[in-house]
Amino acid sequence: MNFAILFGGNSYEHEISIISAIVLKKVLKTNLTFIFCDEDKKFYLIPNDKMHSKTFSTRSYTKEKELFLKQKGFYVKNFIGESKIEMECVINLIHGKDGEDGKIASLLEFFDINFIGPRLEASVLSFNKELTKLYAKNVGVKTLDYSMLRKNHNDNFTPKFPSILKPSRLGSSIGISIVNNEKEFEYAKDVAFEFDTDILVEEFKSNIKEYNLAGCMIDDDFVFSIIEEPKKKEFLDFEQKYLSFSGNNELIEADLSEELKTKLKENFKRIYNPLFKGALIRCDFFILDNEVYLNEINPNPGSLANYLFKDFNTLLEKLAKNAKNENKIKINYNFLHSINGQKGKL
Amino acid sequence: MNFAILFGGNSYEHEISIISAIVLKKVLKTNLTFIFCDEDKKFYLIPNDKMHSKTFSTRSYTKEKELFLKQKGFYVKNFIGESKIEMECVINLIHGKDGEDGKIASLLEFFDINFIGPRLEASVLSFNKELTKLYAKNVGVKTLDYSMLRKNHNDNFTPKFPSILKPSRLGSSIGISIVNNEKEFEYAKDVAFEFDTDILVEEFKSNIKEYNLAGCMIDDDFVFSIIEEPKKKEFLDFEQKYLSFSGNNELIEADLSEELKTKLKENFKRIYNPLFKGALIRCDFFILDNEVYLNEINPNPGSLANYLFKDFNTLLEKLAKNAKNENKIKINYNFLHSINGQKGKL
Repeated sequence: MNFAILFGGNSYEHEISIISAIVLKKVLKTNLTFIFCDEDKKFYLIPNDKMHSKTFSTRSYTKEKELFLKQKGFYVKNFIGESKIEMECVINLIHGKDGEDGKIASLLEFFDINFIGPRLEASVLSFNKELTKLYAKNVGVKTLDYSMLRKNHNDNFTPKFPSILKPSRLGSSIGISIVNNEKEFEYAKDVAFEFDTDILVEEFKSNIKEYNLAGCMIDDDFVFSIIEEPKKKEFLDFEQKYLSFSGNNELIEADLSEELKTKLKENFKRIYNPLFKGALIRCDFFILDNEVYLNEINPNPGSLANYLFKDFNTLLEKLAKNAKNENKIKINYNFLHSINGQKGKL
Repeated sequence: MNFAILFGGNSYEHEISIISAIVLKKVLKTNLTFIFCDEDKKFYLIPNDKMHSKTFSTRSYTKEKELFLKQKGFYVKNFIGESKIEMECVINLIHGKDGEDGKIASLLEFFDINFIGPRLEASVLSFNKELTKLYAKNVGVKTLDYSMLRKNHNDNFTPKFPSILKPSRLGSSIGISIVNNEKEFEYAKDVAFEFDTDILVEEFKSNIKEYNLAGCMIDDDFVFSIIEEPKKKEFLDFEQKYLSFSGNNELIEADLSEELKTKLKENFKRIYNPLFKGALIRCDFFILDNEVYLNEINPNPGSLANYLFKDFNTLLEKLAKNAKNENKIKINYNFLHSINGQKGKL
């Protein structure tokens, strides 16, 4: 299958997305087309042999062909006018803003382009951590207790220590702090408010265990990755979290009882079905006292969490065939015709 | 101010949107540009003198100039290549799917075009009635008790009678039924599942009163419309609901105590601020036993509920100046530069 990998975007994770795409180029054994969305949100067609970090960091990508969106695809201008870029399915690999907040999903839906990735509603509910909490509760999945801080609101909020502060709408650990006292809390609040108007505060539990599970639905069945226990210090920073994409390490499933593994999968299913159909997502769970809690949903995990799956290439082709865009509504103008038949017509 | 009115869309409310735009043409005393989104989601520039229903019902709009989206605006091809359509602010007047589900908001945000209308998150939370319930609860606004029916789930659900069934993601009373017995319930369920995978069921309360309140924020202040008590039979059907746009009737504020009027406004504020900034929305409330309940949020009400405001033209100009798109993130490639300085570079 001929995939187009869409990456970049105007996001704090722009550079991460570039790395994510470079890694997938190595992993996927199929025809690939690379479409880069630059910081100004212009699209460029990047030749396969230019898919390395310098093309972007030196901004030499601007010499490549610019693409534009029309119904059914990405187009390039040429001497005959314009032609459509050949591809069967886009992989939305833009992380963070644009890619995971629903804008890219909207563009691809609107222009009727087949794609792998979360749809609009799924994006909005997973991008905003507060909405993720509401959604999880609604589908019967537990999350840790939390409070919200709103920018420009003088709430008298007294955190417990240690606490963790997270901007509501960012992935990749950016703007996240663990605080142990009032002074650290005030500073961390200022940092997080640089990124977002809403901050989520949770008690930080040092005895908590974190487990990642990726998966998707093919027809009516779930395909799961192995369960990974991410290596961590207190928590993963930007660089650590993403330089692990290429997965040169051997796959080792987390040491968990069958009962807990099943619990994780049941929770994943509740989150995924049907909201995330068409996407390969990773759910990050906590386990505390044998109870499973959702931490967050990564609807476009780095390099699609390929390193957690055994036969990633086959899986992705199947997923592409399962990804469906909205049905089109047929407009028949019956209503306008009926008005035209009346007096005082518009 | 030079407004562009964007209307149409691939939606069950496509024709309603056309009427909505024709009405605004009469109401707005300013330079207007009309951009039509047809059922295939192609954009056309409609000359002012062609803004009547026949242009669309006979599909003669296809003879007009096609527009396309690029950064900063809508463009038309011409003998010099292409030129940008002159306008200062788009009014998103696409109702239902595309316009209110977040896709048009996404397009306008992505292409950095100033617009009046709900942003992405606001669209998703108001378009899906189930999410509206979760959101309202989260901001401390009551809604009626409800149950959800899911397509292809064999839930043993026993409705109380009478009940009202609503597809989760449609406006305009489409697919909505009031049912009085099991047989009507089964039929109504089939009808609603034609439109959506999720149906919201509420007990139908015949003694309930409905009140509509529209408004927006200008700087830090709220501007409210009069409170309207919509005329109704059991509930408004498609045609009734929308032929009322032009507001030829005299404005009469609903007969309510000052206490209840204040309660309605307080509830509106909780819903609106800050999620709906940049939009003029209408909240439809119920009052039952002196308690206020949110029924639904109309983030793009028909003809922007102009008939509920006293100086609509001035209001809209002020709102346009208040509507802000997302801040752009500056990409500096520090991370990629740091990798390039290391061994084993990508």
